[in-house]
Amino acid sequence: MSDGVPVLPGTRPIGGWFFEDYAVGLRYGHPTPRTITSGDTALYLALTGARQPAHCSEPLARALGHPSCPVDDLLAFHIAFGKTVHDISYNAVANLGYANLRFLEPVYVGDTLHAQSEVIGLKENSSGKSGVVYVASRALNQHGREVLSWVRWVMVAKRDPASPAPPATVPDLPREVSPEALAVPAFLKPGALDPMATGGTRLWDDYEAGQVIDHPGGMTLEEAEHMMATRLYQNTARVHFDAYRAKSAATGRRLIYGGHVMSVCRALSHDGLENAFAIAAINGGTHANPTFAGDTLYCRHVVLDRWALPGRNDLGALRLRMLGVKNAELAALPAVAPGERHESVVLDLDYTVLVPRRKAT
Amino acid sequence: MSDGVPVLPGTRPIGGWFFEDYAVGLRYGHPTPRTITSGDTALYLALTGARQPAHCSEPLARALGHPSCPVDDLLAFHIAFGKTVHDISYNAVANLGYANLRFLEPVYVGDTLHAQSEVIGLKENSSGKSGVVYVASRALNQHGREVLSWVRWVMVAKRDPASPAPPATVPDLPREVSPEALAVPAFLKPGALDPMATGGTRLWDDYEAGQVIDHPGGMTLEEAEHMMATRLYQNTARVHFDAYRAKSAATGRRLIYGGHVMSVCRALSHDGLENAFAIAAINGGTHANPTFAGDTLYCRHVVLDRWALPGRNDLGALRLRMLGVKNAELAALPAVAPGERHESVVLDLDYTVLVPRRKAT
Amino acid sequence: MSDGVPVLPGTRPIGGWFFEDYAVGLRYGHPTPRTITSGDTALYLALTGARQPAHCSEPLARALGHPSCPVDDLLAFHIAFGKTVHDISYNAVANLGYANLRFLEPVYVGDTLHAQSEVIGLKENSSGKSGVVYVASRALNQHGREVLSWVRWVMVAKRDPASPAPPATVPDLPREVSPEALAVPAFLKPGALDPMATGGTRLWDDYEAGQVIDHPGGMTLEEAEHMMATRLYQNTARVHFDAYRAKSAATGRRLIYGGHVMSVCRALSHDGLENAFAIAAINGGTHANPTFAGDTLYCRHVVLDRWALPGRNDLGALRLRMLGVKNAELAALPAVAPGERHESVVLDLDYTVLVPRRKAT
Repeated sequence: MSDGVPVLPGTRPIGGWFFEDYAVGLRYGHPTPRTITSGDTALYLALTGARQPAHCSEPLARALGHPSCPVDDLLAFHIAFGKTVHDISYNAVANLGYANLRFLEPVYVGDTLHAQSEVIGLKENSSGKSGVVYVASRALNQHGREVLSWVRWVMVAKRDPASPAPPATVPDLPREVSPEALAVPAFLKPGALDPMATGGTRLWDDYEAGQVIDHPGGMTLEEAEHMMATRLYQNTARVHFDAYRAKSAATGRRLIYGGHVMSVCRALSHDGLENAFAIAAINGGTHANPTFAGDTLYCRHVVLDRWALPGRNDLGALRLRMLGVKNAELAALPAVAPGERHESVVLDLDYTVLVPRRKAT
Repeated sequence: MSDGVPVLPGTRPIGGWFFEDYAVGLRYGHPTPRTITSGDTALYLALTGARQPAHCSEPLARALGHPSCPVDDLLAFHIAFGKTVHDISYNAVANLGYANLRFLEPVYVGDTLHAQSEVIGLKENSSGKSGVVYVASRALNQHGREVLSWVRWVMVAKRDPASPAPPATVPDLPREVSPEALAVPAFLKPGALDPMATGGTRLWDDYEAGQVIDHPGGMTLEEAEHMMATRLYQNTARVHFDAYRAKSAATGRRLIYGGHVMSVCRALSHDGLENAFAIAAINGGTHANPTFAGDTLYCRHVVLDRWALPGRNDLGALRLRMLGVKNAELAALPAVAPGERHESVVLDLDYTVLVPRRKAT
Repeated sequence: MSDGVPVLPGTRPIGGWFFEDYAVGLRYGHPTPRTITSGDTALYLALTGARQPAHCSEPLARALGHPSCPVDDLLAFHIAFGKTVHDISYNAVANLGYANLRFLEPVYVGDTLHAQSEVIGLKENSSGKSGVVYVASRALNQHGREVLSWVRWVMVAKRDPASPAPPATVPDLPREVSPEALAVPAFLKPGALDPMATGGTRLWDDYEAGQVIDHPGGMTLEEAEHMMATRLYQNTARVHFDAYRAKSAATGRRLIYGGHVMSVCRALSHDGLENAFAIAAINGGTHANPTFAGDTLYCRHVVLDRWALPGRNDLGALRLRMLGVKNAELAALPAVAPGERHESVVLDLDYTVLVPRRKAT
């Protein structure tokens, strides 16, 4: 992200950028630096139902080696992601995918995040009305240290369908964040995560590739909730907020921010993944179908892989596939092959969590 | 709660315990220790409308002798109660009653609560499909000091209706927390609670047994609100969140957490009970009818008793009956005899508050 | 506000004051002092979508000369205003107008506000069923310093239509807060507000009288949101909360607190007024039509004037007219003359913001 061409801050048109405004190599410093507070973390609990104690018990966080509770990985992600919307997806039609998302450093209450992006690919759609923009983004804290980095691609409307198409450039993206590339703080003492705190004894050793976990809870989503979450993240994408305008769109309704669906599914999965105390990476993922207020979400996980981590015998990584399912019994949901679509599946996320390992005996 | 048999932490099945899993004497250490933040207290105001200044004015709290604002008694209760749901009422059909609930120490922002429970009674229902579980619970802070203790009984589904019934054991429960058992911090200076802060001059001396107070406000409840409150308390009882599953249940709808009803009624009662600055005990109570989103709550209080407290001439206790009423004019509500049910009454709570006494002149 | 007749605290009837209870010169000390927390500021973001970085980035706030983030001017106003409802507008039929609202000192997290009011005018309506009450109010912080002062007038129901009318007294109110009367902290370093943080390069010099800005976003409002906001401000006006009672009122529905409409419009206007970092005054304004849940808000600004400020060449003031518009395309909205009503316009506010000036070159 160092040799691109900076877009002059504040030159964004009032209605946002459109597909023809982008060029590979353009770099954006996104507005609204944001200090995270305990108000944000309380709202995150209230809006998602998150229960991982590493994020809500100060004594436990300190026992893990943190100076204070790290904020939920997805809360940090949503705030960082929200900043990029201003320049990248304000006029987005759909958020198509993620790759190479890495959580590099814990984020704490009091930290201030800002975000930057660089266009790394462009491809006009055959309709000529929109195109796909590939962007590499990163979030930095007040010390200038990178806490998150990721690639996403998004379909953006053209201002003028008659504008000429740029040459197509599709970046080569990694299919996974390799175990060696996962950032694990040296200070972490995962043994402190006792089952009395998390509610489960299942550790890294107890999961195996192919295992399917249907989590028991379900969560019905409301307009007020997804809009509050999305505003908390200062994500301004118009499709989430404007019911009047949505009436003339294809969906006819406000679309729920896909990140809210991720967070609710992550929270639902606590019963069964109690000790998956941190997300280390998102390898890829798609919002396979839209989610609307009134939909009820359920969550299935498939264990994809179990990785030992170099230099750590106290924790390991699990590569997981998270399926967010709406308005359907999980028990009746067939196995959905990788890449396959199913009408009830709204989220198909490939990601990697950290889990304590059983002590050698 | 000292000589029971501990249930090994983390052994809970992923779908929770059912009636036949309980036995008198089993003890549970509930997961998710939780540090309370100013985000929680702000959300509590926003979700309930609470206005007791002891909980929202730092100068007043210090004048009362506190180091900082104590959190609302019911906020502390809901967070503590929420923890017990994981092991006690995840598969509950209904929360039937409370007894002997004591607020033992103030809880402050920064405190971390965890909770424990012991089964003290069991009684299968005649249907054979469910049974009543009696549980004594308590919440401890980060210093290991008990801040809250209570008994509740709850109807829990059986996993298998064919399971044999355990021998019926129904505990003998006190009908009230006696004045001598009320915990009043020695440092409290209730005289600091001036009417300019609370908005009312009515003190302990001004109430009398038999007095009826119909509070003027009304509050309509929304799905987003009760779910946010219940998630904030990390209460995972399925009946509150899953509209898809609720369609096949008797109610057909998501049920509002009874504690949210308590909090809204307590907030409504501020006009008339302005100086009832703390709840000392809940003697008993029932959620007499279900509450749903769209219902409008009103609150009536009946003064049951007025107790002087040993060693204190600056404050006294009022034993009150709180009636939460839905979708009905209070003026048209008849007197409801103790134990009597009325279709509009959703909450019938017998509890004890602390109120400053008029200075001797 | 110094020579009125104080109303004895706590003497308010449980159902609030009615029109015939007021007399010119009566003074009220409003209950519920309130310490502002970071929970409040997070909720404000989540409920309104505010993005002015001066209020959410600690490093930026310090670069501006603040000790920490000042809370959003409108958040401070809503909290202060909310306190006056108890004595002034609990039985209000409508909030008719504002004048001479001045933001006198920044408010920070940790500050405790209380409020006072004095009746400065009264005028019975010709119907004899209600009357207009003119009130001068102010909010003070924990140091006893005035942080906000304003005048508003409100239509209040009579308890008894047969009560005699008081002599009509209508105060002479200023049409604007003059540039000389605007409070600008001496320590402010507005040059710190860089476009990378705010997202816009438009400074004071770039606006001119007559300019019209149609802001691009739209926001649909929900019952849960406006009620949460209004309760957060501890504003108890019954019309916002009680759907059961509202069924027999003229509107048939809960009315959204006009201040919530202001806040949402202010947030929408960030795209186009990125560097309007503080509100210095509200010159006047009316809630021209009611707003209900389900309505979608849009915002138009008209620049009324551009004022240099005495002793400051680094910032200036813009006098703006904010039009809050519901359920209508801004592009199709005609110019609405001052004082003119339009069925889609719900808010017509005349106010003054501070904006950095371009450095002399």
